[in-house]
Amino acid sequence: MKKFPNALDIRALAALPTVSYEGDENLVIDSAGTAQDATQSTVIFLENEDLFEAVKESQAGLIITKQEFAAKLKGRNLLITEKPYFTMMLIIERWLAQEKQKEAGIHESAVIAPDTEVSATARVEGGVTIGSGSVIGDGCIIEAGCAIGERVKIGAHTHLYPKVVIYDECEVGAHVIIHSGTVIGADGFGYALIEGVQRKIPQIGNVIIKDYVEIGANSCVDRATLGSTIIGEGTKIDNLVQIGHNCVIGKGCILCGQVGLAGSTVLEDYVYLAGQVGVAGHLTIGAKTMVGAQSGITGNLPPDSTYFGYPAIDAGKMRRIMAVQKYLPDMYRDYLARQKEKKHQE
Amino acid sequence: MKKFPNALDIRALAALPTVSYEGDENLVIDSAGTAQDATQSTVIFLENEDLFEAVKESQAGLIITKQEFAAKLKGRNLLITEKPYFTMMLIIERWLAQEKQKEAGIHESAVIAPDTEVSATARVEGGVTIGSGSVIGDGCIIEAGCAIGERVKIGAHTHLYPKVVIYDECEVGAHVIIHSGTVIGADGFGYALIEGVQRKIPQIGNVIIKDYVEIGANSCVDRATLGSTIIGEGTKIDNLVQIGHNCVIGKGCILCGQVGLAGSTVLEDYVYLAGQVGVAGHLTIGAKTMVGAQSGITGNLPPDSTYFGYPAIDAGKMRRIMAVQKYLPDMYRDYLARQKEKKHQE
Amino acid sequence: MKKFPNALDIRALAALPTVSYEGDENLVIDSAGTAQDATQSTVIFLENEDLFEAVKESQAGLIITKQEFAAKLKGRNLLITEKPYFTMMLIIERWLAQEKQKEAGIHESAVIAPDTEVSATARVEGGVTIGSGSVIGDGCIIEAGCAIGERVKIGAHTHLYPKVVIYDECEVGAHVIIHSGTVIGADGFGYALIEGVQRKIPQIGNVIIKDYVEIGANSCVDRATLGSTIIGEGTKIDNLVQIGHNCVIGKGCILCGQVGLAGSTVLEDYVYLAGQVGVAGHLTIGAKTMVGAQSGITGNLPPDSTYFGYPAIDAGKMRRIMAVQKYLPDMYRDYLARQKEKKHQE
Repeated sequence: MKKFPNALDIRALAALPTVSYEGDENLVIDSAGTAQDATQSTVIFLENEDLFEAVKESQAGLIITKQEFAAKLKGRNLLITEKPYFTMMLIIERWLAQEKQKEAGIHESAVIAPDTEVSATARVEGGVTIGSGSVIGDGCIIEAGCAIGERVKIGAHTHLYPKVVIYDECEVGAHVIIHSGTVIGADGFGYALIEGVQRKIPQIGNVIIKDYVEIGANSCVDRATLGSTIIGEGTKIDNLVQIGHNCVIGKGCILCGQVGLAGSTVLEDYVYLAGQVGVAGHLTIGAKTMVGAQSGITGNLPPDSTYFGYPAIDAGKMRRIMAVQKYLPDMYRDYLARQKEKKHQE
Repeated sequence: MKKFPNALDIRALAALPTVSYEGDENLVIDSAGTAQDATQSTVIFLENEDLFEAVKESQAGLIITKQEFAAKLKGRNLLITEKPYFTMMLIIERWLAQEKQKEAGIHESAVIAPDTEVSATARVEGGVTIGSGSVIGDGCIIEAGCAIGERVKIGAHTHLYPKVVIYDECEVGAHVIIHSGTVIGADGFGYALIEGVQRKIPQIGNVIIKDYVEIGANSCVDRATLGSTIIGEGTKIDNLVQIGHNCVIGKGCILCGQVGLAGSTVLEDYVYLAGQVGVAGHLTIGAKTMVGAQSGITGNLPPDSTYFGYPAIDAGKMRRIMAVQKYLPDMYRDYLARQKEKKHQE
Repeated sequence: MKKFPNALDIRALAALPTVSYEGDENLVIDSAGTAQDATQSTVIFLENEDLFEAVKESQAGLIITKQEFAAKLKGRNLLITEKPYFTMMLIIERWLAQEKQKEAGIHESAVIAPDTEVSATARVEGGVTIGSGSVIGDGCIIEAGCAIGERVKIGAHTHLYPKVVIYDECEVGAHVIIHSGTVIGADGFGYALIEGVQRKIPQIGNVIIKDYVEIGANSCVDRATLGSTIIGEGTKIDNLVQIGHNCVIGKGCILCGQVGLAGSTVLEDYVYLAGQVGVAGHLTIGAKTMVGAQSGITGNLPPDSTYFGYPAIDAGKMRRIMAVQKYLPDMYRDYLARQKEKKHQE
């Protein structure tokens, strides 16, 4: 459980919208957790009935909860609000924002090419390499062992966790978060079979990642063959996701773990792909369309729809098909009987 | 083929349970391999008939085999046992244990925060970074370029291969093995869509990995939103596996390559998930249950059962469905004919 | 968009086979791109009608196109050929070949064991580690932060992008390209459940990667238990692919993103596996066989065939099954009606 270096200011909580506080005004809270691991200095939350007993039994010093549970938790320190989970998140966000920022500056073990522009307010940790012509914006945090190629641009307040790799010429926006092991800009996967040899098609485009994107760990976004692979503003990508060359992803999309997009596919804004979905190349998925886990997309999808299955079709239809699949063996026996009957009749 | 620095002690082999030796007492064996690549100083094993010819033809200096094959391999150096494969593994284990351990100590290029506790018997290789407040146990091997965050605890005799990343506050037990590129403790994937913006839910829990766990290469175990993501004692996880935030995995589970678990899912002890299985969030899979490759789990599964398919159902039922699926086009033609007939009758 | 340091030599283009040039003899072209991002010094290509308008509207200084489009692009600088895309790729290849090579030599921050053989013409970048007994061939490029184990052999002109890991005893051929984060030679995934404990089976084989192989980012090729996992000459492997221990892959195969092979599987030459395909262990897939995306292979496949589905069957048959699956609910209703009728008749 994370311990925050500064205690939660109970008095300031009363200032949160739609919140009231009942309890000890001098309470000291220095961590946020769950009912299971809470101590007397931990804040937890209770949103739903099913966790009530666990919360009641817990040692938690402070419980964020709804009015409906307050009476039954009498005597505990309670922060009462209509949205306990959301309030808990707000409190944690404030706490995190108050944490002392790590020092800016370039660690002596980093290897920085001479003609780079690294902001004086950026932090560049041990073992980082930055190639010729690259630009690192204000307030960036480039953690240990990241490898940044040549002519790369990274916008302000972007955070690269350890071991992120950015290939030459890629552009990363501002307020972007990229987790460890993710590789931006490796060559797209393109070969032509010529006289028995898989001949490499040169990949000289780049990747452009817009502002407020977050990408999980060990994911891959390939550079374009020509032009750019683009990840739109505010899009969030989970771990172990594969984005093929020349894909163009809109704003505010959600790509869950292990999703794979083949090359040149377009996702319009706010598309949601659940885990392990695969999308073939050169397709367009319409805005706000949602695709169920493990689905395989083999054609264009309209906007504002829900798809599911392999190959994916309208989710309602697919559910009806799946619901009757278990009767297939019975149906087959019936079919066989019918065929026998027919033959007998002939 | 690996060459062991010390030769196999043939005389000591007689001491192995249920083993007898026929052959040259002065034989020198310094490697273990397969029939294909064996030399006169290589030990191989023969367990099943189908490899008999390859073994007979091989150059292998020593053959571990069963009594039933011994007569037909007369004149070769033979180690006879009821379990050739298992005996081979025991011999290799002993060999590996005899290898000279690499020196303990911290490489001069490692970047270690001042307030860490690194055991004097641990080995920390080049380019490793260890953050403030972290503890590295006795006999640990932290290979080149690992990045260990702040307030991390790593138990005794744990081995991190090159480029492993452990985020802040995570705990790794004793005798754990983690292969290259694996990322422990990256943020869980959680956002709330508020007024057109995917707002990040802070992820301040951690990951706890118990003793004797092994995790393959390029896998990801996400930190909990609150509380802990837990990997139980002796559980083994293959490459490119995704474990979502707040999952709790029991003892002795096996998760094969490219498996993905969404958030908050519980695997009880000894669950087996074959390759590319996907499990939705907030589910429980009962102890000792086995799930076939590429299956999609969308509901809780009972213990001691076998599931398969997409969505996964009882494996026996699924096999019966799959067996008749190929007749679907015929069945459809029959259905069409029947509909036509019906219409005609009306 | 990549800017090439040297301008394209327009006069030399006339020398390309089946090409003619119409336009300004003094044109200066220094980049290659798409219609969308082209400037007056960019070359683009037009192969198909559907992009004609975009190309016509573009600022591109030079257009590579077919004779049939030439008249409609009168007044533009045109390179006319039967194969615009292929010609564009040839031009880019030449350009890339003309780029000044980075300097050979070992960066001072690299950690190289004393008894290695690193060619004087190889380039070893910052933070690279190379273990005892390893050999790096002529003209190799080992980018920042790669970790190369002991007794590793890397052939001439092989290029490892940043953060590649090669475990002990593995062999990589000549002219191989491996992208960032890929792990070669981690332990195969093998355990035996003995008295409630998953006991590790030692993995002492290696990986052999033949010449002209390319492997994408964050992929994994596991070492053999005994013997070698082999990747055949000229085979191309995409990102996030898992190759299990003891697999043997032939020449010129294509393995797309997120493919997974379990252990000991054999792919003969020129096998094509589309994205997210999973292959069970101990199987053989015949030469030139193609497998559709997300398929699951559970048995041997013959050569020169096309498979698809889960479990995969002949692609033609699978397409016929999939085409009628949507009628299943109707067929089930008919079946139910029939059963009711039958019961009624009894």
